[in-house]
Amino acid sequence: LTQANIADAVARLRARGPLVHNITNYVVMNTTANALLAIGASPAMVHALPEVEAFAPLAQALVINIGTLSPPWVEAMERAAVAANVAGVPFILDPVAAGATPYRTEVSLRLLALRPAIVRGNASEIMALAGETGAAGKGVDSTQGSDAARDAARQLAIRAKCVVAVTGAIDYVTDGERMTGIANGDPMLSRVTGTGCMATAICGAFLGAGLAPFDAAIAGLAVMGVAAEQAIVGAKGPASFQVALIDAFHNLDDAALAAGARLQ
Amino acid sequence: LTQANIADAVARLRARGPLVHNITNYVVMNTTANALLAIGASPAMVHALPEVEAFAPLAQALVINIGTLSPPWVEAMERAAVAANVAGVPFILDPVAAGATPYRTEVSLRLLALRPAIVRGNASEIMALAGETGAAGKGVDSTQGSDAARDAARQLAIRAKCVVAVTGAIDYVTDGERMTGIANGDPMLSRVTGTGCMATAICGAFLGAGLAPFDAAIAGLAVMGVAAEQAIVGAKGPASFQVALIDAFHNLDDAALAAGARLQ
Amino acid sequence: LTQANIADAVARLRARGPLVHNITNYVVMNTTANALLAIGASPAMVHALPEVEAFAPLAQALVINIGTLSPPWVEAMERAAVAANVAGVPFILDPVAAGATPYRTEVSLRLLALRPAIVRGNASEIMALAGETGAAGKGVDSTQGSDAARDAARQLAIRAKCVVAVTGAIDYVTDGERMTGIANGDPMLSRVTGTGCMATAICGAFLGAGLAPFDAAIAGLAVMGVAAEQAIVGAKGPASFQVALIDAFHNLDDAALAAGARLQ
Repeated sequence: LTQANIADAVARLRARGPLVHNITNYVVMNTTANALLAIGASPAMVHALPEVEAFAPLAQALVINIGTLSPPWVEAMERAAVAANVAGVPFILDPVAAGATPYRTEVSLRLLALRPAIVRGNASEIMALAGETGAAGKGVDSTQGSDAARDAARQLAIRAKCVVAVTGAIDYVTDGERMTGIANGDPMLSRVTGTGCMATAICGAFLGAGLAPFDAAIAGLAVMGVAAEQAIVGAKGPASFQVALIDAFHNLDDAALAAGARLQ
Repeated sequence: LTQANIADAVARLRARGPLVHNITNYVVMNTTANALLAIGASPAMVHALPEVEAFAPLAQALVINIGTLSPPWVEAMERAAVAANVAGVPFILDPVAAGATPYRTEVSLRLLALRPAIVRGNASEIMALAGETGAAGKGVDSTQGSDAARDAARQLAIRAKCVVAVTGAIDYVTDGERMTGIANGDPMLSRVTGTGCMATAICGAFLGAGLAPFDAAIAGLAVMGVAAEQAIVGAKGPASFQVALIDAFHNLDDAALAAGARLQ
Repeated sequence: LTQANIADAVARLRARGPLVHNITNYVVMNTTANALLAIGASPAMVHALPEVEAFAPLAQALVINIGTLSPPWVEAMERAAVAANVAGVPFILDPVAAGATPYRTEVSLRLLALRPAIVRGNASEIMALAGETGAAGKGVDSTQGSDAARDAARQLAIRAKCVVAVTGAIDYVTDGERMTGIANGDPMLSRVTGTGCMATAICGAFLGAGLAPFDAAIAGLAVMGVAAEQAIVGAKGPASFQVALIDAFHNLDDAALAAGARLQ
């Protein structure tokens, strides 16, 4: 994926309107659903054990986010991932606060073993899953810059045989060989809850539009970053920024994407 | 209910300030509560088995929405519905994504057997509950226009002995004999998550204000549609539209309602 | 704490950026997290039994809010409170709708026995916990003015050996001996869901910044009230007010706090 054809990826997403199955956390369900609708996907939040395996194959992509995990939800995540695998539906994993407690690390590793197409996390989370100690986050927030996690991301991608995206001041996407940086975004993103979760879901929407995992992650993070740069103009603080961010997903046009995305 | 007295219904709702008991989905709890407050009701979200039967009789209306259902929540919904019935508290059912999985259809039919005053759904959901096959939605979104569901709505109203409201480009409300259309709203409603759930809750608030089910459904959908028409003016996208929509509920005045509602 | 040094308290909060562990209700998780981020804290929502006792000692404060309680969540609240106590992490309790059902009252009293540093509630809730009958709220809303709950607050503070904050037109904070009023805020706060919960969380953030409980409660409620007075300017209704409220937390400056806070 190059800067020139991110706009094509968005057009493809909007034309397909993929159904994106989310098993995500309570904090971000509303904003995730609205972000997915604004970018052109159809979100559904489904986690009940009596239906999760029936629903997963109906979707074009599955998003698993462990933000407010608990044992019954983890069971639903695992069953959905297996059902998605069987049906050929790609999934993306957001290992929220992996490393902060042993439970989160352990659950993340179990889900990683079910072969996500993409793992998207902050530096602390990716370093924890790569086995680096001493980089644990402050709750859900990273204590490390994304640059510090580049090696960990590469190692994790190789070991888990998936694409790894680590977000921060610059976002990095790697499949273990290639490494692309996305130099978009705004510091205000870190003052709004769930923008990382939102980035994960949007990458998932690009998976659902049929993009290869490496391209889907780049497209999702570029769209997120360009929209944030548009949203900060005129925002008076984090809440008006969040409103403008979702409006920006809805209004993104080809020219803005082609001019705005900074891949490196 | 006629166009001329929708404003009276709103005045009645605001004067009574009904306590509306919601057992609804995680995605929309916040926006539902804010919509109910803005229109003049007192929302409460209560689902725990140790208290749900004690709480239901305290409210003036009960809203049951299966959006993120799971077995313990379904048990709470059933117990609340029974307790509401015993206490003479009317309830409204929102069968989110009925037809998308067997579990949703089965739970919806069980709740339907507990005699809701109103069922509010999109075309795919109402057609699924009426037994029509082949009209299943894409996740929580309808694949059918509301016109296609008019017969299904009428049949369902007769069979379930309740009022059925099917929302779409034009909303239809029927008790099996009468059929009223409400030609208000804006396509942006479908780009914001939970606006259908919000419409259901507002119809529930009118039930709580003492309106007959047929009138409560018409009033709720007319208010929703008129507010949406006000909100789209000046909105820059779906998120600023949602903010303006809840502001509009708060600010609705008699003149706007009398002039704006288009019943047919 | 005096009017002159509320700004110092905010500066201290922003410098420390305390990790605030929330076990709160589904309705307000998103807005609570955003309010905490806007004021300068790091929120985390963690409730799973396999990790809640491991997580509580990592935080600088714990917020327990029973809004959408259920038995497994109550068990998590109790375990987290005990773990916080052992680790010397202060906690604040929000007994949402205590008095509305026996279950809520009973759970609130059990949590009260675990020695919160602060209890923050509306008048009906505080009166219910103080054992006054006949003052039960309408669902989550108080039927009593805060003035009516001053004696109850004082009695509860003495009996539970904690600070009690009762919010309303004027907020009162007492440790059983001292009693400070905060005459800030705006009636629009009562038309937005979860502003009481937000006040509780912000008081919790000041606990996490190392303020004594009495001062933390005053600082939190003064910040809430001053921000509301800034937010109502230009707001067009409750939703734009809520956006402006969170923006105001982010933008609060010393001059506004020193000039705006009205302690009595």
